[in-house]
Amino acid sequence: MYQTVSFKKVNPHMLSKGQETQKHILTESRKLFTVQGFQNTSISQIIAATGVKKGNLYYYFPSKEELGLAVLIDARDEFFQILESSLVGGNPVLKIIHSCNSILTLIQQKNFVGGCLFGNTALEMTDSNSRFGKIVQDIFSHWAKKIEYELEQAASSGLLNSKIPSTSLATAIVAILEGGIMLSRLYKNKEGLEDCILVIHSLLECKK
Amino acid sequence: MYQTVSFKKVNPHMLSKGQETQKHILTESRKLFTVQGFQNTSISQIIAATGVKKGNLYYYFPSKEELGLAVLIDARDEFFQILESSLVGGNPVLKIIHSCNSILTLIQQKNFVGGCLFGNTALEMTDSNSRFGKIVQDIFSHWAKKIEYELEQAASSGLLNSKIPSTSLATAIVAILEGGIMLSRLYKNKEGLEDCILVIHSLLECKK
Repeated sequence: MYQTVSFKKVNPHMLSKGQETQKHILTESRKLFTVQGFQNTSISQIIAATGVKKGNLYYYFPSKEELGLAVLIDARDEFFQILESSLVGGNPVLKIIHSCNSILTLIQQKNFVGGCLFGNTALEMTDSNSRFGKIVQDIFSHWAKKIEYELEQAASSGLLNSKIPSTSLATAIVAILEGGIMLSRLYKNKEGLEDCILVIHSLLECKK
Repeated sequence: MYQTVSFKKVNPHMLSKGQETQKHILTESRKLFTVQGFQNTSISQIIAATGVKKGNLYYYFPSKEELGLAVLIDARDEFFQILESSLVGGNPVLKIIHSCNSILTLIQQKNFVGGCLFGNTALEMTDSNSRFGKIVQDIFSHWAKKIEYELEQAASSGLLNSKIPSTSLATAIVAILEGGIMLSRLYKNKEGLEDCILVIHSLLECKK
């Protein structure tokens, strides 16, 4: 269903030494890609950050592109788990709000550095490498689908009575959060994303 | 008030040969920076795109950083003019909606390639170069202030009765548009940004 690349998937609970190295490379590369971007991160920087020898790095990831795609997929899998566990609350509207607040907490914990790897990749890579673009498309679509499901549940239980179709509202909520993360990263404070969550609150309260 | 860099400002209506060259470099560099990003654009690519000799390029812009900043400032001045002329309509709410639709038209005219130079720069450069970040901060703040002014006008004339403070709503509208541009660029269609404008419509209709 989702795009895969040529690296072996790692179960973090049962790691061989090789898998540990692979996971270590993915983790350190993700940090660099998130803050500096993919293109602006060199293989030398990855080697310096991981302490892994060049030959060993290329053993696990045949090219920088394959490494970049593997980092995205690794981050995607982690994000989907976070998303799933953040959609909790007494009703579908509260679930969405809780999920938005969890994202704010995550961004705050990183001191607004780096922002969202998926949003960054969407803007950096989409016009130059369709493999990156496709993965980010799938991530945002999955995210929007999860929100859409909750909006439908909210509508069918009479909690929400919005003029905006659920598909459009769900897409817009993803966009609002991404825009908010961008502003919070830019100004290095939580206000931008908080204003966006306030707007999402208001959208989920609006009656026809 | 706004940050300046070491290049001579150009009046497009009265250009000397040197100014024409300078403007030509800015225009072509902007195209490259918007689509590929700043870091990923080489001086060789700029020379190839402009046909200007290296010495000539460095005569006008002493470094790639100075060129990047000059491109941002040039794009900022153009955007502020576009913003000003897009905020038209029978009332403040219609002005905001018209401005949003103008942005959609602009993004569509470029076939969703490149997206927004300011959003791209916000994500690419903000954690690595504060001079770029500062200019984009000023741009988004100015944009939000313009929208905030219209929201205040709408509120004082009874057109808008939002629970959200004007400052927060204005900031969120900028974030929503940036998020929408990101999605439209990623999926190469207008739906993402259209959904966002639909949400802005709804926010401007909401009554307490």
